[in-house]
Amino acid sequence: MIYLDYNATTPLLPEVREAMLPYLTEEWGNPSSAYRFGAKLKQVIEEARESVANLIGALPEEIVFTSCATESNNTAIWAALRVAAGKRHIVTSQVEHSAVLNHCRQLERDGYQVTYLPVDSEGLLTPSAVADAITDQTALVSLMWANNETGVLFPIREIARVCREQGILFHSDAAQAVGKIAVNVASVGPDYLTVSGHKIYGPKAIGALYVRHGAAFSPMLVGGHQESGRRGGTQNVALIVGFGVAASLAASELCQRARQVARLRDLLEAEVLAALPECYLNGSREMRLPNTTSIGFPGLDSDAMVTFLDSQSVCVSSGSACLADAIAPSHVLLAMTRSVDQARSAIRFSLSHQNTETEMRLATAIIRSAAALCRGSQARC
Amino acid sequence: MIYLDYNATTPLLPEVREAMLPYLTEEWGNPSSAYRFGAKLKQVIEEARESVANLIGALPEEIVFTSCATESNNTAIWAALRVAAGKRHIVTSQVEHSAVLNHCRQLERDGYQVTYLPVDSEGLLTPSAVADAITDQTALVSLMWANNETGVLFPIREIARVCREQGILFHSDAAQAVGKIAVNVASVGPDYLTVSGHKIYGPKAIGALYVRHGAAFSPMLVGGHQESGRRGGTQNVALIVGFGVAASLAASELCQRARQVARLRDLLEAEVLAALPECYLNGSREMRLPNTTSIGFPGLDSDAMVTFLDSQSVCVSSGSACLADAIAPSHVLLAMTRSVDQARSAIRFSLSHQNTETEMRLATAIIRSAAALCRGSQARC
Repeated sequence: MIYLDYNATTPLLPEVREAMLPYLTEEWGNPSSAYRFGAKLKQVIEEARESVANLIGALPEEIVFTSCATESNNTAIWAALRVAAGKRHIVTSQVEHSAVLNHCRQLERDGYQVTYLPVDSEGLLTPSAVADAITDQTALVSLMWANNETGVLFPIREIARVCREQGILFHSDAAQAVGKIAVNVASVGPDYLTVSGHKIYGPKAIGALYVRHGAAFSPMLVGGHQESGRRGGTQNVALIVGFGVAASLAASELCQRARQVARLRDLLEAEVLAALPECYLNGSREMRLPNTTSIGFPGLDSDAMVTFLDSQSVCVSSGSACLADAIAPSHVLLAMTRSVDQARSAIRFSLSHQNTETEMRLATAIIRSAAALCRGSQARC
Repeated sequence: MIYLDYNATTPLLPEVREAMLPYLTEEWGNPSSAYRFGAKLKQVIEEARESVANLIGALPEEIVFTSCATESNNTAIWAALRVAAGKRHIVTSQVEHSAVLNHCRQLERDGYQVTYLPVDSEGLLTPSAVADAITDQTALVSLMWANNETGVLFPIREIARVCREQGILFHSDAAQAVGKIAVNVASVGPDYLTVSGHKIYGPKAIGALYVRHGAAFSPMLVGGHQESGRRGGTQNVALIVGFGVAASLAASELCQRARQVARLRDLLEAEVLAALPECYLNGSREMRLPNTTSIGFPGLDSDAMVTFLDSQSVCVSSGSACLADAIAPSHVLLAMTRSVDQARSAIRFSLSHQNTETEMRLATAIIRSAAALCRGSQARC
C-alpha cells in the first residue's frame, strides 16, 4: 500500500502505542479518584499536557484535552459566543473545515450572523479583509492555520494582530498545521487554537483546545471538574498519554520531518506534472504546508481516479475525508474560483516523512496509468 | 488491591482489549475515506453499533457514538431544547450526575427554567411528582435510571409513560444501569438514553446516545457527516470496537453477573453492618442496583476512611468520582434529607462480578479496623 492521505489520518507511532498500552491493561483507574490507584494517573496526564503545550509554545494550564479537533473547534466558537455579552457576529472563511463551517451554518439558523470571507484563486486571504469584516457586533474571528485540502496557509500572525488590536477574540483551527510546521501561540497570540491527536501520529478521539491564559472561556461539555472545570467527562488516560508522546516526538522531529516530506512532496508533484503536463496545482505554491499538494487533472473525474488508484493500493483523497460520504464538489476549490468540473477533477496528496522516494516514483507511474484509463473510459470519467 | 469502586470505572475485559488492538496497529485508516483501507472499517463500526443497540433493545440506527456519557447527557439536553420550539423549562432531579446537574445550572444562567425534583429519604421519587412538575413550557424531562452513589433506581418505566402521555421528550442517564440490570428502550420508551463504555468493562472516552427512531434531534458536535450527521469528528474505531465487544459480553452475561454481584454486595453489606452495628444504609434497599451499597459510618469522616482504606489497598469512594476533586458533601445524600455530617460519613461500595467472597471478608476486616482507627484518632475525624 502507498498511503498518501496523511491529512485524513496517521498511524500511531510505535512509541505512542507502547506508551498507551499500560493504560489499556493494568493502569485502568479513574484519575478523578481519591485513592492512589486512580489519583496517581493525574501525574501522567499532566506530563502529556506539558508535551502538548510545548509543541505549540503554550503553558500547560492553557491546554484543555477534548475528544477531537471537531470538539475543540465547536468549543472555541461556543465559548466565544457565551462570553461575548450579546455580540452575535462571527467572521470566518469559505474554506474552513466542516467542523467550523457547519457549526457556523447552524448558528445562522439560530439567528447569529456569519461572514464567510472569500479567498483568492490561490486560496489566500489578506489580514485587511479580516479587518474590514469586523463590526462592533463581532464576537469571534475563526480562521484556519492551514487548509486540509490544499495545505494553503493563512497569514495567521497578521490576522491575530488585527484581532488583538480590535479587541476581538481569535480562534485558529490548527489541526493540519501543528506537527507539520512551527506553530507558536506565544509569539502569534491567538486566544483559542485547535490541535488534533490523530493528525500527528497520535490516537484518534483525542484533541486539545488551547485557551490563552486570561482569555474568557466557558465550557461546552459540562459535567465533573475534570480539566479544571473546562471539559467534563472521565479522562481517557491511554489516549492522553499517547497524544503526549506523539506531541513530544512531533516537537523534537519537526524540522527534520518537514524537510523530508517537502522533498518527497516536491518530487511527486514534479513527476506528476512532468508526466501529465495538462495537470495544475490548486492553491499557492509558496504559502502552504510541506506535505500537501492538490492537483487538478483536467477532464478527469477525481472520484473515479481515487477508485482506480485504490485498486492499485494507492490511497488518496478527492476531498477532505470528513466529507467523503458527501457527493458535493469541494467547497474549498469552488471558493478558489474553480469551476465545478475543476473541483471534481482535483486530487489531494498529503504525505508523511514515512513515505519514500520509491513510493513517489511508483505512485506517479500508477497515477499516469489511472489518468490514461480514466480518459479512455467511456464510463463516468 | 481490593477494588470496590466499579461505578467509577471498570477495567477492560481481555476480550475487549484483544478486539481493540488491531485498530491501534495495522488497521489505522479513517473510516470516512473513500478507499478500502479506510472504508472497510465502516463495517466493524456498524457491528459494534449493533451490539450496543442489542444491549439496550434498540435498533442500530438509534445509536449515536459519542466521546463519553457526559457528552451523551449534554447532547440529549441540547437536542431537546433546540427542537422544542421555544420551550424553556426542564424537569430533572436533585440527585442527577454532574453531567446533567451542572449543565442545567449553566442553562439557568442562560435564562432557562429548571425544576430539580426532590427525592425522599430513600432516594426515591414518584411518577406523579414528575407529572406535577410538567408545564406547557417543559421541553424535556431528564432523570437517571440508577443513581451512581446509592444505586437507587427511579421508576423509569412509569416516568416514561407520564412523559409520553403528555407529549414531553424524556431522557434518561442510564450510564450506571446499563450492563448491571436489564435496560430495554423498546419496552420502556424513552426518547434519549445515555450509555457509557467504561462502566461496562469497555474503554474510556466512548459512549453512546440512544435517539428513539422518530424522536426529534439536533447534533451538539457539528462537523463532518459521521454518525449519519448526528455527531461530527473522526470515529475512533478501536474504542468503538471495544465498546461493541463489551456490550455484547454485558448482554450475554447480564443475569449471571447481576446474580453474582448481588450475592457479594449483600455479603459485604451484612458483614459490615454486623461488625459495626451503628452503620446504616443510604437509599432504598429494594429499589437499587445489584452492585452498589452506600453505607453511613456515624461520627466518622469518610474522606479519612477512604485514605486509610487506600493505605490498605482497598479502593472505595466517598462520593461520585467525577466530584472527587471537590470537597462539598454529596449532593445526593443531602437531597435524601441526610445532614452534612451524615453525608460526610458515607462510603460508596460499588462491586463487580469480578470480586470474590474472600475479598468481601478481607475488606470487612479492614473497614472495621479503619473505623476503629478513625474513631480513636484526634485528627480530622
